[in-house]
Order: sequence, then structure tokens, then C-alpha cells
Amino acid sequence: VTVLRRAAIVAVGSELLTPSKLDTNSLHITEQLNRLGLDVVVKAVAGDSRDELTHLIGALLERVDLLILCGGLGPTDDDVTREAVAAALNRPLVEDEAITERLRERFKARGFATPMPETNRRQAMVPAGAVVIENTKGSAPGLWIDHHGKSVALLPGPPRELKPMLAALVEGPLRERSSGEPLVRRVVRITGRIESDVDQLLQPLYREWAAAVPAIAATILAQPSAIELHLSAHALSQDIVDRALESAVQRVVDTIGADVYSTDGRTLEQVVGDLLAANGLHVAAAESCTGGLITSRLTDVPGSSRYVDQSVITYSNDAKTELLAVPTELLNAHGAVSEPVALAMADGIRARARADIGVGVTGIAGPTGGTPEKPVGTVVVAVTAASDRRCRTFRFYGERELVKFQASQAALDMVRRMLS
Amino acid sequence: VTVLRRAAIVAVGSELLTPSKLDTNSLHITEQLNRLGLDVVVKAVAGDSRDELTHLIGALLERVDLLILCGGLGPTDDDVTREAVAAALNRPLVEDEAITERLRERFKARGFATPMPETNRRQAMVPAGAVVIENTKGSAPGLWIDHHGKSVALLPGPPRELKPMLAALVEGPLRERSSGEPLVRRVVRITGRIESDVDQLLQPLYREWAAAVPAIAATILAQPSAIELHLSAHALSQDIVDRALESAVQRVVDTIGADVYSTDGRTLEQVVGDLLAANGLHVAAAESCTGGLITSRLTDVPGSSRYVDQSVITYSNDAKTELLAVPTELLNAHGAVSEPVALAMADGIRARARADIGVGVTGIAGPTGGTPEKPVGTVVVAVTAASDRRCRTFRFYGERELVKFQASQAALDMVRRMLS
Repeated sequence: VTVLRRAAIVAVGSELLTPSKLDTNSLHITEQLNRLGLDVVVKAVAGDSRDELTHLIGALLERVDLLILCGGLGPTDDDVTREAVAAALNRPLVEDEAITERLRERFKARGFATPMPETNRRQAMVPAGAVVIENTKGSAPGLWIDHHGKSVALLPGPPRELKPMLAALVEGPLRERSSGEPLVRRVVRITGRIESDVDQLLQPLYREWAAAVPAIAATILAQPSAIELHLSAHALSQDIVDRALESAVQRVVDTIGADVYSTDGRTLEQVVGDLLAANGLHVAAAESCTGGLITSRLTDVPGSSRYVDQSVITYSNDAKTELLAVPTELLNAHGAVSEPVALAMADGIRARARADIGVGVTGIAGPTGGTPEKPVGTVVVAVTAASDRRCRTFRFYGERELVKFQASQAALDMVRRMLS
Repeated sequence: VTVLRRAAIVAVGSELLTPSKLDTNSLHITEQLNRLGLDVVVKAVAGDSRDELTHLIGALLERVDLLILCGGLGPTDDDVTREAVAAALNRPLVEDEAITERLRERFKARGFATPMPETNRRQAMVPAGAVVIENTKGSAPGLWIDHHGKSVALLPGPPRELKPMLAALVEGPLRERSSGEPLVRRVVRITGRIESDVDQLLQPLYREWAAAVPAIAATILAQPSAIELHLSAHALSQDIVDRALESAVQRVVDTIGADVYSTDGRTLEQVVGDLLAANGLHVAAAESCTGGLITSRLTDVPGSSRYVDQSVITYSNDAKTELLAVPTELLNAHGAVSEPVALAMADGIRARARADIGVGVTGIAGPTGGTPEKPVGTVVVAVTAASDRRCRTFRFYGERELVKFQASQAALDMVRRMLS
């Protein structure tokens, strides 16, 4: 059996049009393959043109050992993956009688009076030599093909069908053909610094890591309000690579300090939630420009009812006064987007919710409402506790949703720093 | 000048590791190219291996007329786009003195005492014959290369740098080389139906559209809580294609009815917001399991302060009683996840906020907290107004965040239907 080392992933069909935030397949597949020591070198999305896909499959198979195709396995004319793979591998399409039989049974079980339409037999036409991967969650069977020392897997697009089928591959043919040298990745998440600053501080480490055994590859990704440092290494044993990466992560923490908020994949809301739960504390937010996003992120974490009882979204000035007892005079004197008001909002929700920590956020998310003094993107965040009151004014860039996100990130980070 | 018709987009480098929700470049580029009549047939993401990228560029250029590469234009060794393009097109890398000069000036302007490091000159090494696309927002210049009737554009990865540079291309070389036959896309968004049902209803229309002039291509995308029908057509004049698509959209609306919520690209929260604003109504939400997501989505829309004053997030039973006056007896008798409680929450927030419409949502987002009677994914949504009270119990599938999203979608849709 040839060892598979390099992989490519191709999503077929409609995904070309979809906002890519809905593409969770390729991230999931990449993670699973990395664990087996397979490196994903290219990801692609192709439309439903058969010729296009045939060419792409051929071109990718020149460079990789494993090709995973997702989608395009349905019964309609648009479903071209089977045909494109057959053409690219120069294998005839043959009917797999077992698949036809199963499709007929499935059709009958649904209680249709008429027999299965002949068009559905398309799903049983497979490249010669393909092995079926059973699909327990849908009608389209997956396929696995070994081809001159390379492998091709055809999986359906819907994640709930794809995931168990991929798991079966990981336990079966993929594990048999893997190097057993896992590629391990650790992500260090940093806030409150700019990319070039982090990059400069880490230069000496990069040089050490490149020369180390196992070598550690580092990539910095700058995102709004967060920098991610991805460290990865390949080694014969999971143990060796785990230890090498752990020590690399420690060096980063020693260098960057408290601006590192996560070294184990946790999101900021998970880190904050864990700190709250560990200390038995409750948080409550009074959100103006973030419109509920902070509390929504906090409650994305399973078990968040341990530390969230309530929050309020006070968009209008009246709501700030009624729900949070922010004095009208304060609003008139300083404006709604001001440090005194943000602090009063944090104190107000802390009192109302009888919470240990109160968060108040007020700002101008845009696109209108900015002034020369307080332009769009101005956001004031206050975090208060019994013996600690903090407030900061930020100026974020970007469009409305991006300003909201950065504001929620800043608020969660201020809670984290207060608890750390 | 050759007319460019088919395009591919390649993102280079770190994006391979990034959750793809942050990739907004390819959607933006696709839109811009479609307007000029260019069809994007493949999108790919490649790591920062020069050989890999060289091979991919070569393979794609066999099939497309225009290749747009994003990222990998920085000064470090990881920035391999220039070299890969030069290798794939078999052109030497030559220093562009004008770029070197500009980099030196940029460096000096930042007030560094030392001269620019020689490594930065990498950014001035360009494939012979490349024309510079000016970057007003960053240091990496873009490049444009005409090559045997095909074109290659190299653009930086950060969206705020890429967008103005792409706009310059669209006004310049891309427009000169475009067919002037725009590819226009219309998206019809549908809720409350399953994909196969919509597909069946539209079968006769598909057949008509395939035979029409201009032909209309249709693709259905099923997403959690929404189905999107993408209609697209190519024609000599914008007018002809606009009219053909408008009449196709009307046929869909006639067939599907009130389950169509958007035919012009608006999101559900925009549609709901426009209905509220047009009727001069205010909405307020009492959110339990959605944790603020409904109000956050409502306030993602610019100008939402016209119809949102306040909302509350009442995670605990106490909060429901204190903030919304939900009777303790009701909570005890029916449980927090029940129609009487959801209705009381909607009425409670409507009274508190003096809003025209109240929304109450309570459910079990999971992964724990489910019972045989009320499994994870059970969500009750109530929407109440002065003379109309509606309540529905849903059972959503998927993980916590997906349940939250589907619940927010259901709540917004119930508001839409009440106002329509």
C-alpha cells in the first residue's frame, strides 16, 4: 500500500455561489486528514461543468496522492462528479447493481406507489473499480477508488452525510494508507497587538523553529481584533510533536505575555466563560451598538447558563434610562457615546442583574451617525465589578457588522483581563 | 484585444488555514467579474509552496482566460505569488526600479533611521512585462500581465487593499477586454419549505427557462432555515437580461407564494426591518435560547434604530419573571420551554418596551438539557401584537449555534408573515 502524504479537496457544484461561510466541510476534512499526517495543499471549488471538473481532477492528481471531492453525487444532470472522475481516471462508468437495489428499496420504503424513476439509476453508475462508502443519512452513496498508488474519494456535500462517511474512511482505507506521522497544529490567539509587532517579537523564535527537529512551521493570520499564530509540525510520534509544539507555545506566551488569550483552540467567549465559571461569577451586559452580539457570543458556549442570567439591549436613550437607570442629565451632558454613560450602563446592568461583572457598550456602528468628534467606529466599553471599574474608548474601522464584531471582541477581552 | 470570458480565482497562502468565513475576497471578485460578463468557473486556495502554486496556475490557465491571484505579494520568503506566476508563464523575474523607488520612499516616510532592508526589494521583482496596479492602501503593488490572449492579475490579500485595485482593473483593462454581455444573477429566498418540494414545484419552469432566449440557469441551494434559488442569464444587453430575469422571478413568486421572502438580495432581517419601518412599527424581543442573536441580526441593518429601542435576554427563570413579569406559576406548570411561557415573554417585552410587536423565544439549544419530551433543538417562538398572537413549536437539528440560528430565522420569519 502506498503511503498518502499530500491531499487536495474539491467542492463540486453550487458551493461556488454560496457565501463561503457555510463551507464547513473543507475545514473538517483538513483537520481529519492532518491527524493522519496528510497535508492538504490545495482546496478548490468548481461549478457543475463536467469538462471543467474533469480537467481540474486530472491536474490535481498530478500533484497529490489523495483527492477528496464533495458534492455532485445526486441523481440530476447537474450532478457530474461521478462522470468527471470516470473521465479523468479514464475508467468506464458501470452500473453497481447493489446501489440500484438499495435505491429501489429506499424509494419503496418512502411509500411511493410508482416504481423508482429510471433517472435515479444515475446514482448507481460508478467509475469501474469504485468501492461504495455507505451513506446512512442520505441517498447518495460515497465512492472510494484506488488508482495507480493514488486514491480518490467521492463524498456527498451535506455535512451531516459527509461527516460519518469521512469518519469511516479515516478508520479504514485512509488509516491503512497513512504515514502514521501526524501533522499537528496549535493555534495561539493574541489580542491588543498589531501583526507587525507580533511578527517582530517572534523573529528569533522563527529562526530557532526552522532549524529544530522536528521543524516547526509558523504562520501569522491577522483578523479584525485578533491575531492568530498557527504552529505546525510533522513527526514520527504524536508524543514528540506534541511536546515540541507545547514548548514552542510556551515560548510565545513568555514573549507576548497576557495579550495571548488562547493556546488550545478555545475562542475568546470560551476563555471568558471558563474564567467566569471557575470563579463562580456571573456577567451581565448592557448592549447598545453591539445589539446583543456580546451576549449571543457568550451564550454560544455550551453551559453558559452557569454565568449568564440576563442582559439587556438598550438601543434608545429612553431604554438606557428605564432599564439601566442611566440619568438623563448624564446622557444630555456627555452624549450616549461617552465614558460616563458606558460606565453607568455597566453599573446599571450589574445592579439590575445582581451580577458580579457588568459590561456596558455604546458606540456608533455606522454607516451614519458619526460626527467629526465621534466618527463612525467610535465605541466605548466599560467593565465594572465591586472593586474595579474600567473604561476604554476605541475607534474601529470597517463596515457596520465589522464594527459590531470588534466591539464585542474588545468587551469580552476587557472581561478576560479583569479576571486574569 | 481578446475577449475574456472564463475566470478563475486563487487565494494564496495563509487562507488555507483560515476559517473560510473570513474569505470575502472571492465573493466580491465574482460579483465584479459577473457584471462584466465573466464567468468564474473555479475558485482555489493554495498554500505557500511555490511549486504547488506554479503547477496550479499552469493548469488553470489551460482552461480560463483570466486568472486572479490574491495574496502572497509581501516581502518575505513565504510570499511566492510573483515567483510562481513568473515560472508558470515562463517569464524571468526582473526588478521594477519604479517599485523599488516607491518602497524606499515609503520606508523613509515612516521615519526609520536605517535604509530599507534589501529583503524588501523582493517586492520589486516582477515577471517581465508586468504592469503595476497601484496600491494606495498598502505596500504591496499589484500586477497585471497579458499573456498570449489571456490575462493574469496579482492582487494583495487584505480586502481593503484589494477592493480599490480591483475597481481600477474593472474600469480599465478588464472592461476593455470584456464581452459587454453581463452575466446577471438574481437570488430568490424561500423559507418554510423543504428543498425537494420547491424543486418539484419548479420543474416546469426549469424546462421553459432552459429553452428560453436568453436561457436562464437555475440552481437551488438548501441552507438551514432557508432555500435560495439562484437564477442567472447572459445576454447582449443588461436590459434584456434584467427583464428576462424579472419575469422568471415573478413566475417563481406566483408558484411559491408567501414563502418567498426576498427577490432582490435582501436578507431576512432587512426585509423585516423594511416592513417595520414602512409601517412605522417597533419590535422588541425577549430572548432566551437565542441569547441576543435575534436583536443582533435586526441591528445588523443600518437604520435599525428606527424600529428597535430595546430587547432583553432572559436566560434564567428569575430573569423571565423580573424583566418580563412571566408568572412563576406559569413557569412551574409548563416549564420554561412551552407555548404559554413564550407567549408571556412576547407580551411581557411588548408591554415593557411599549413596542407594537413582541417576540418571545425559549428553547433548548443543547448539547445538554434535552428530555425525551423536549429534546435538544426544541424551540418555541411567540410573536404578539395588539390584535394578533401567534406561537409555534419547532424542532431544529444540528449543533448549538445552528439551533440558535434556525430559531432566530424562525422568529424573524414569523414577524415577517405577521406584517405581510
